[in-house]
Amino acid sequence: MAPILLNCMGNDHNDYIKQLVQVKNPYLDTMEEDILYHFNLGTKTHNLPEMFGDIKFVCVGGSANRMKAFAQFIHQELKLSGNPEEISDICEGTDRYCMYKVGPVLSISHGMGVPSISIMLHELIKLLHHAQCHDVVLFRLGTSGGVGLAPGTVVVTEKAVDYSFRPQFEQVVLGKVITRSTELDEGVAHELLQCSSELQNIPTVIGNTMCTHDFYEGQGRLDGALCSFSHEEKLEYLRKAYDAGVRNIEMESTVFAAMCRVCGLKAAVVCVALLNRFDGDQITSPHDVLVEYQQRPQALVSHFIKKRLGLVV
Amino acid sequence: MAPILLNCMGNDHNDYIKQLVQVKNPYLDTMEEDILYHFNLGTKTHNLPEMFGDIKFVCVGGSANRMKAFAQFIHQELKLSGNPEEISDICEGTDRYCMYKVGPVLSISHGMGVPSISIMLHELIKLLHHAQCHDVVLFRLGTSGGVGLAPGTVVVTEKAVDYSFRPQFEQVVLGKVITRSTELDEGVAHELLQCSSELQNIPTVIGNTMCTHDFYEGQGRLDGALCSFSHEEKLEYLRKAYDAGVRNIEMESTVFAAMCRVCGLKAAVVCVALLNRFDGDQITSPHDVLVEYQQRPQALVSHFIKKRLGLVV
Repeated sequence: MAPILLNCMGNDHNDYIKQLVQVKNPYLDTMEEDILYHFNLGTKTHNLPEMFGDIKFVCVGGSANRMKAFAQFIHQELKLSGNPEEISDICEGTDRYCMYKVGPVLSISHGMGVPSISIMLHELIKLLHHAQCHDVVLFRLGTSGGVGLAPGTVVVTEKAVDYSFRPQFEQVVLGKVITRSTELDEGVAHELLQCSSELQNIPTVIGNTMCTHDFYEGQGRLDGALCSFSHEEKLEYLRKAYDAGVRNIEMESTVFAAMCRVCGLKAAVVCVALLNRFDGDQITSPHDVLVEYQQRPQALVSHFIKKRLGLVV
Repeated sequence: MAPILLNCMGNDHNDYIKQLVQVKNPYLDTMEEDILYHFNLGTKTHNLPEMFGDIKFVCVGGSANRMKAFAQFIHQELKLSGNPEEISDICEGTDRYCMYKVGPVLSISHGMGVPSISIMLHELIKLLHHAQCHDVVLFRLGTSGGVGLAPGTVVVTEKAVDYSFRPQFEQVVLGKVITRSTELDEGVAHELLQCSSELQNIPTVIGNTMCTHDFYEGQGRLDGALCSFSHEEKLEYLRKAYDAGVRNIEMESTVFAAMCRVCGLKAAVVCVALLNRFDGDQITSPHDVLVEYQQRPQALVSHFIKKRLGLVV
């Protein structure tokens, strides 16, 4: 099966070793039951290997509607049987996240911000582990503010960086702050860039992505309920970010990169810039323009998946 | 009008001064248009004073379904005309948040975690400001993990504290960390405790609420995808929290308290404990028990609102 080969390492015998999804928790396999509370799934109530064992690509994004639209889109792109309009939400017993399975692709929403995506990632990684998935690639498909880019440009993240432009994520564990690396898979990023060159109308760059913990003060917006800085101070901060290689700003990439890295999952962040933050703070483009922008990361990742599956050359 | 009196300050002439909702942003009133992007509302496209000018109580909670159920519940409790099943989502053009208006009560979902509720609060406070609302009380109605409490106990927050049990919220502004106080309104908290004593079957305490940025490692859970500590270390951290007055753990209270305080809004956090974290990490209670627990903060806040409106004595 083609997608396995591309994600595996050869050994001396020219065989391939499956890269199983790793949890980093010695207690997990001793638990009689694991309830994935925010997915409304569990190891006793659901046959996770049967439901999810063939997953090779997991695509996550903030908006539930957008991730449903992506599931329907990838259903058409992969030319699967059945009506894409009839796909059902696997997590329909809860409204915390939505989840759709389309062949080897899982599409999940994660809400906004690091804590929200972090809960989803813990339960997703446990799900992939319980389901004995292997050779899985994860993508975050998102929206972002561009830094010195034309609206509509897609940014494939090289490094996810914090508010000080450091490629790290600070995690509190039992009241102590630890630091994790946020480097993403270079190979997947360049494969995505190659994909963009094969498609029409998806201007794409590789750059650093700054992850903040709010949308207003942390991103230097002048239009929040609170604002204590000047227009010039805002521009100075954005210029510093640009000089540090930052090309877009969003709110989930550092924890996504850090957790995938710790668990040995290949991962990429693909976000479209809805505006150029040097030009303003408010998102004023017409609705249909924004909708088309938001489809660009989807089209790019779809092309990547089809290439991996051997559906396009 | 009774609810105004209770929130106002007398002056020398025994008149009452309206407490308008304050934004802390000098730029806001100079903007020609303000698009509340994540609500899909704006000052040019919507008549905000007409739509929201009479709001006196804003109730927010993580889950969209739960906040819709609360809107329907308060509709019945206030004996308003019309079919509560037919209330419509004011933010239906976006799936980031949902919003329902029921008489003087606004019910809004905020997703999970500090960044998600922070975006909502910026746009809510701007909305209340644009709508010229005054004498507004905010409530966060949530779920939480209890610390030394029986499942089903409601905690009214005295102080929202961080992972080191400090009553503060760290906000990054243009790459610099600033600290804001997270003290909540003492009067509203004690009024809520009084309400609980007037109701059946809503065991309620006042205590500190610890706000974390994730559900697993930050809260000392042993059942995440990542876990690097022992059962004993977990219990030691929870014991320290208990000794610091912490009675429950959730993921939004510090920024909620901090932003409301800066903007002069009276606010309270009312969360039910779904489990006692000294006894475990997983939420294993049957669905119907959890549903009943989640109705307790709603019943408590509903009673508070009815008393303020003079509908009960």
